[in-house]
Amino acid sequence: MNRHLPTKLQELNPKTAHICLGIENFITSKLKTPLKGSVLLVALSGGVDSSTLLIILSCLAQKNGCRIHAAHFNHQLRPEADAEEAHVRQLCESLHIELKVDSQDVTAFASRHKLGLEEAARMVRYKFLERERRALNADWIVTGHHANDLAEDVIMRLIRGTGWPALGGMEGKCNNRKILRPLLSTPKETLISFANACSLYWCEDASNEDENFLRNRVRSQVIPLLCKENPAFLNAITSLWELAQIDTDHWSALIKQYLENTDFNTPTLLKEDLESMSQATRLRVYKAVLSSMGKGQPLQQNLLALDAAWQANVGGKIVQFPGNKIATIRKGAIYFSYR
Amino acid sequence: MNRHLPTKLQELNPKTAHICLGIENFITSKLKTPLKGSVLLVALSGGVDSSTLLIILSCLAQKNGCRIHAAHFNHQLRPEADAEEAHVRQLCESLHIELKVDSQDVTAFASRHKLGLEEAARMVRYKFLERERRALNADWIVTGHHANDLAEDVIMRLIRGTGWPALGGMEGKCNNRKILRPLLSTPKETLISFANACSLYWCEDASNEDENFLRNRVRSQVIPLLCKENPAFLNAITSLWELAQIDTDHWSALIKQYLENTDFNTPTLLKEDLESMSQATRLRVYKAVLSSMGKGQPLQQNLLALDAAWQANVGGKIVQFPGNKIATIRKGAIYFSYR
Repeated sequence: MNRHLPTKLQELNPKTAHICLGIENFITSKLKTPLKGSVLLVALSGGVDSSTLLIILSCLAQKNGCRIHAAHFNHQLRPEADAEEAHVRQLCESLHIELKVDSQDVTAFASRHKLGLEEAARMVRYKFLERERRALNADWIVTGHHANDLAEDVIMRLIRGTGWPALGGMEGKCNNRKILRPLLSTPKETLISFANACSLYWCEDASNEDENFLRNRVRSQVIPLLCKENPAFLNAITSLWELAQIDTDHWSALIKQYLENTDFNTPTLLKEDLESMSQATRLRVYKAVLSSMGKGQPLQQNLLALDAAWQANVGGKIVQFPGNKIATIRKGAIYFSYR
Repeated sequence: MNRHLPTKLQELNPKTAHICLGIENFITSKLKTPLKGSVLLVALSGGVDSSTLLIILSCLAQKNGCRIHAAHFNHQLRPEADAEEAHVRQLCESLHIELKVDSQDVTAFASRHKLGLEEAARMVRYKFLERERRALNADWIVTGHHANDLAEDVIMRLIRGTGWPALGGMEGKCNNRKILRPLLSTPKETLISFANACSLYWCEDASNEDENFLRNRVRSQVIPLLCKENPAFLNAITSLWELAQIDTDHWSALIKQYLENTDFNTPTLLKEDLESMSQATRLRVYKAVLSSMGKGQPLQQNLLALDAAWQANVGGKIVQFPGNKIATIRKGAIYFSYR
């Protein structure tokens, strides 16, 4: 049961106010997102991350003229799900924040669509959040992902074999999906100390301990070893993430420039364009063209094979890609099509 | 005691011949280094990595008209050092390869120059190798670094907080230091099976087990967890490495183009040049200019602070960097100098 929770900057002690203003600065200068006058929908699970996020945004709302809403999805997966929903309702009430709740039998949805439980839960949750965002005409769905989540994400991407800049981890701002992650450079430890300073009560999700999930094994086994070697490891990760965001902008602009006149029904890369690109650019342009053609992720080895064939100028050479896509080299140009 | 060791491709069984040809292909197509007619100096420790490398290069030498030499440095650090030297002498004799041996009291050198033992050992070893390379007029110093070494290197760089593309790990070919690393995409396991197939005897370096070294902790604690999650983790690392090499070429060419008319006595970045660069490019150009000015590594946060000041067009603003270097913003240009 939460008694009085802060809803203004002035109600925070100097240390928690500092955390709050640091997050405001992260949103405006690193995520390059103006807060002034915005409408934010917080994805609220009831855990410490999103509950603290809600308090922080409430405290920043008055100063910035924002409107804050919350949305909670009850996945009906764990015995404590209803208690969590009740907790979330009470939290929003004490913060005077309007809350939308939805619920669905995720297990049934997963088996109907032949999906893993985690993936199914994420799908239905984000569908609900996006529906609510539109209904409220909110600018962003705001999530509680923090620096420890980011570190886990980077390690999982490293394990799977992710290229650059995707290796740098999840986006801080996803313009397509309208998702904003203001806590991405804040360690979980900082959020917990903030929550404790506010005497916030929160729910612990027992499934976070389940070692059947890769993420939880990375969290409990890998990250502690890395933090032991470098106590500032989370800072190293957020620096890497920042560089990746900057590089993403570089590559997006370059790709856009090369593809702006491309007809995506019959994508063609012209000889003179290809010759003006570095190999690093060509590989990313191939990937962008293939992605625009629909499902099927090209492997780095496929992309390198295409580039090697182009460099060797192997006329008539056809390179195949997942999703029935093919690339044909003819007179120094590359023609993309379906098989 | 090694009896008959193979010195020709024809003496290998199909499996080991395949490994050998794979490494030849890696040298020519990934390291872009022609083998034909080259003179190679193998840095030979007596361990399985460099001993197997020596056999592999011997087998490729005839086909490619190469001349192979070996060099062994006795660090006098471990009780078994002299036994290792004797082993290395015998190995080269049975392969009919000319060997140079040198020795120095590394402990004394380290304390004289106030260096760590590992760093001192590396310094004197590479000094010796470079001296021998010049004496032989060899094209390359060739080392036994393999895919497991590469994975350890990537993880250590991740822990320390390394940017991209340096995060991708050590270079396969270092043109400045004339170092070539032909085994970088080959797992240690493959080298051991090659060595066993040849009945090669090798020395185990007990200091590889010493958990006082970060590298050894990464090898024994971190890498096994990552390989358990993805049995093809070493492939993921060599793919990442390959992408990093390609991106290094991209950035080197771009930086060279921007800096070709720069006077490195008073480096200046002009307003119109800076305005034509992406932020990703600017950060790397700042770094290249600062590196050209001598010792002192700029931190990413310093580089970002300079860029933020430039973007905000803060006239007269001075940003300080390690090594007494400063950057001054004036009328949209950046002037670099010493304090």
